[in-house]
Amino acid sequence: MPLTGAMFLGAERRTGRPPVIASVDPRTDTVLEPGYGSAAPQDVARACELADQAAPAYRATSPERRATFLERVADRVEALGEELIGRAVAESGLPSGRIRTERDRTTDQLRLLAAEVRDGGWVEARIDRALPYRTPHPRPDLRARQVGLGPVAVFGASDFPLAFSVAGGDTAAALAAGCPVVVKAHSADLGTSELVGSAVAAAVRESELPEGVFSLLFGSAGEIGRALVADPRIRAVGFTGSRAGGLALLRTAAARPVPIPVYAEMRSVNPVFLLPAALRDRAAALARGFAGSLTMGAGQLRTKPGVLVAVEGPELEEFLTAAGEEVSAYTGETMLGRGVHDAYERAVAALAAVEGVRERAAGRPGEGANTCVARLFTVPAEVFLARPGLHDEVFGAAATVVVCQDTGRLMEVARALRGQLTATVHRGEGEPRTGDEDLARALLPVLETTAGRVVVDGWPTGVEVGHAMVHGGPFPATSDSRSTSVGTLAVRRFLRPVCYQDVPADLLPAALSDENPYGLRRRLDGTRETS
Amino acid sequence: MPLTGAMFLGAERRTGRPPVIASVDPRTDTVLEPGYGSAAPQDVARACELADQAAPAYRATSPERRATFLERVADRVEALGEELIGRAVAESGLPSGRIRTERDRTTDQLRLLAAEVRDGGWVEARIDRALPYRTPHPRPDLRARQVGLGPVAVFGASDFPLAFSVAGGDTAAALAAGCPVVVKAHSADLGTSELVGSAVAAAVRESELPEGVFSLLFGSAGEIGRALVADPRIRAVGFTGSRAGGLALLRTAAARPVPIPVYAEMRSVNPVFLLPAALRDRAAALARGFAGSLTMGAGQLRTKPGVLVAVEGPELEEFLTAAGEEVSAYTGETMLGRGVHDAYERAVAALAAVEGVRERAAGRPGEGANTCVARLFTVPAEVFLARPGLHDEVFGAAATVVVCQDTGRLMEVARALRGQLTATVHRGEGEPRTGDEDLARALLPVLETTAGRVVVDGWPTGVEVGHAMVHGGPFPATSDSRSTSVGTLAVRRFLRPVCYQDVPADLLPAALSDENPYGLRRRLDGTRETS
Repeated sequence: MPLTGAMFLGAERRTGRPPVIASVDPRTDTVLEPGYGSAAPQDVARACELADQAAPAYRATSPERRATFLERVADRVEALGEELIGRAVAESGLPSGRIRTERDRTTDQLRLLAAEVRDGGWVEARIDRALPYRTPHPRPDLRARQVGLGPVAVFGASDFPLAFSVAGGDTAAALAAGCPVVVKAHSADLGTSELVGSAVAAAVRESELPEGVFSLLFGSAGEIGRALVADPRIRAVGFTGSRAGGLALLRTAAARPVPIPVYAEMRSVNPVFLLPAALRDRAAALARGFAGSLTMGAGQLRTKPGVLVAVEGPELEEFLTAAGEEVSAYTGETMLGRGVHDAYERAVAALAAVEGVRERAAGRPGEGANTCVARLFTVPAEVFLARPGLHDEVFGAAATVVVCQDTGRLMEVARALRGQLTATVHRGEGEPRTGDEDLARALLPVLETTAGRVVVDGWPTGVEVGHAMVHGGPFPATSDSRSTSVGTLAVRRFLRPVCYQDVPADLLPAALSDENPYGLRRRLDGTRETS
Repeated sequence: MPLTGAMFLGAERRTGRPPVIASVDPRTDTVLEPGYGSAAPQDVARACELADQAAPAYRATSPERRATFLERVADRVEALGEELIGRAVAESGLPSGRIRTERDRTTDQLRLLAAEVRDGGWVEARIDRALPYRTPHPRPDLRARQVGLGPVAVFGASDFPLAFSVAGGDTAAALAAGCPVVVKAHSADLGTSELVGSAVAAAVRESELPEGVFSLLFGSAGEIGRALVADPRIRAVGFTGSRAGGLALLRTAAARPVPIPVYAEMRSVNPVFLLPAALRDRAAALARGFAGSLTMGAGQLRTKPGVLVAVEGPELEEFLTAAGEEVSAYTGETMLGRGVHDAYERAVAALAAVEGVRERAAGRPGEGANTCVARLFTVPAEVFLARPGLHDEVFGAAATVVVCQDTGRLMEVARALRGQLTATVHRGEGEPRTGDEDLARALLPVLETTAGRVVVDGWPTGVEVGHAMVHGGPFPATSDSRSTSVGTLAVRRFLRPVCYQDVPADLLPAALSDENPYGLRRRLDGTRETS
């Protein structure tokens, strides 16, 4: 498919105005054709208008029709074939194997959410039947369901050019919830975004849905992002990226006359606690596992273990030596772009300059431009506790080991951590007792209040797309801990409950009618229909 | 029980500092004993510290233990007997029958939530079993549940001194969710609050729960409210009251280093659409129903129909004449206090002064101080559309009928409405067609996006406590449309999801263990266990 550089305003393709931007191949720093003009304020307004017009009809579609639409999006994304893979590789610098995996994960997610739409549990249909003879007051007929919030603004992310972008998690969840979507493409992935955008737009056409169900805008995150989030027709926002970017969106949303939910994922350091017996039993294996998790995707995964916490001693030294060797042996892969690479180098230099922080190992640069030189640091717990800046994520393959004098200090570090996407504990392997049991039992409730996902004896990278996944967490990991951006529970973030009182059959939504045409499991007078 | 005027800091009773405040009987404007000293900043901090300390143990209680606790609260509130009824009547000016009903509603709500805690559906337990042999990557064991957010600040409301106050909806929902509660008592209901506080504190003791599960503070909403909402240990806020009060809390919460959810219910006008055939068929019956709903509780219910919308013509004139007679015949009941009464009179005078607004009827003052003189106004739709101030609630028994020249204008009014707790449609009664069908069908999707509850052929006052109730709605009716403050779904507002990855049996929360000791219905690999 020839790339045109034109945005999607519903069914219309429109070429934006200057400044014209272009993607850059981070492997070579060469500019990729075509250029993408920026959406003007009236383009943003048009996309929102179309979304608003589409919302009532799209919200009223049957589960089957909506599920089929999501499956068509998945089919169409797959049909882009090698062209999509090649373009995403060129724009992200990520290896083609990784991009293929990510493409499959994206289509898996669309199909999982299609199945969830058909399942209908997310509707949470509830019926409390009328009790006309109850005294002192009769009970009216009350029926409740979840409905979509309305048009959703989604911001594409550069670190997952497919899975968290144009047809990624937030788009899939919003479409599943019955909400039209206006996507702002990330400027690092313009061609990838146009390709995927064409797939979604084609699925909208084939499904004979209102064109405003999907629009795709190009241009500056600051300017267009602000206009989009400020538009009164937008009812929720999905974003993933830097903390600065997320906080800016939160400010824009809070300044609206009508505030709206903003789901901003803003990364975290994903602490890993290496308990004493774990280090004693398997320091070398832990070092290998850690280095693999640290350097995966050049350390650009949101769940990268950026901070390790352990008690000082010869076992920790053994781990550090082994981990240092692993890190030193890592040949840097290309990062997402020059800006990302330079920011990484600056962050690593700033970290190294902190008094008490010590560089234990550094990897090797790879071939080509913008490769990531991995780094392993240590820092005494006292310094870590005193300097909140050390709690901030470094985007790239750098990690800091927080060295504690005893397990009391380790617990203190655990309690001092801010909100995280994940938190991990490694325990000793011996049975029946290793000495780590009590510490793990004390840690878990703390980590459970800190993180969206708690991992034991594993590594946090690798986010399963399923029913029990929670990819989210307390602030500042995300702006709203009540939600996940991955898995079937993600649909809920774009829903709100509505109650219908004494609404007659001819006006009731089908989901709540006596006939139950969608075969939903409903809650009838508090007990569950088996459907 | 002798009232002492002392706050509850967990198990400790402490007398506050000046200024000492007291409740006033609005029927006579006489001051009621005792005086209540104000919480000092260190008292607020102490309550939050105790709540924070109590949170892990309380969160880990079994459903049975937590349900029994909620039932004990209900029993203890009932055991307060006539003393509670008398005091609440004296402080609110509400008739004793209404207070009794409200007390029963409060204990019903506690018992319904106890049943919901036992039911366990709110835990949303999900298990995706490990697939160790899956290629290319094995799937870890993933288990998710909802857990309490942590300590919740609840602000007592004066309009429902029991049902939305110390042991009211937000307190019950937070306790059900496993969250300790710090209540700021409303200054109009100090004795009522102390009595109910003593009941909750006794239930905490009897249930052998950590004392910090419940604290109760007295003092100024501005000062203590700010300190409470700003305290880093508070993780969510429940409030109901004026828009100014709610917005102030939202600002305080947004300025925290770590923002938190604020559930502020800020009232609405609860529009009622009287469609042409409804007016034709039953103008007099509608007038009676409307006047009853308007004047119930002196117009101080949050779901009071404050705005009616109808098409001009002789049928509307007939309705206005009949409604005017009903309103004129209403003898004013005591309002909640002098401040509320005076604010009502100012708001009504301001409304009457708007060009185009016409007073159609006024009720009679009642006996004693601070009685509510009901008012019925009309306003042309053009004026209503042009003046956003006319969309604001008048707290008290005043309503405005928006007169539209045709049904197109009526739809325009519907689309111009801001977020509402409720929206109501009255249709003609004839079968099979009355002429209202198409209009109702066009209206409902608009009202569904505007309101938390849509009512047909009824009146919005009377909020059932059940499974299908939604008492909430889009901004500015509430600050968060994703939630309800009444009914079993209210538990969700104080929950967040957490995922446990490869967590071994000895560390797994019981709700997610293979043994399923609480007998929860869980979602296993996406399908539902029947338990």
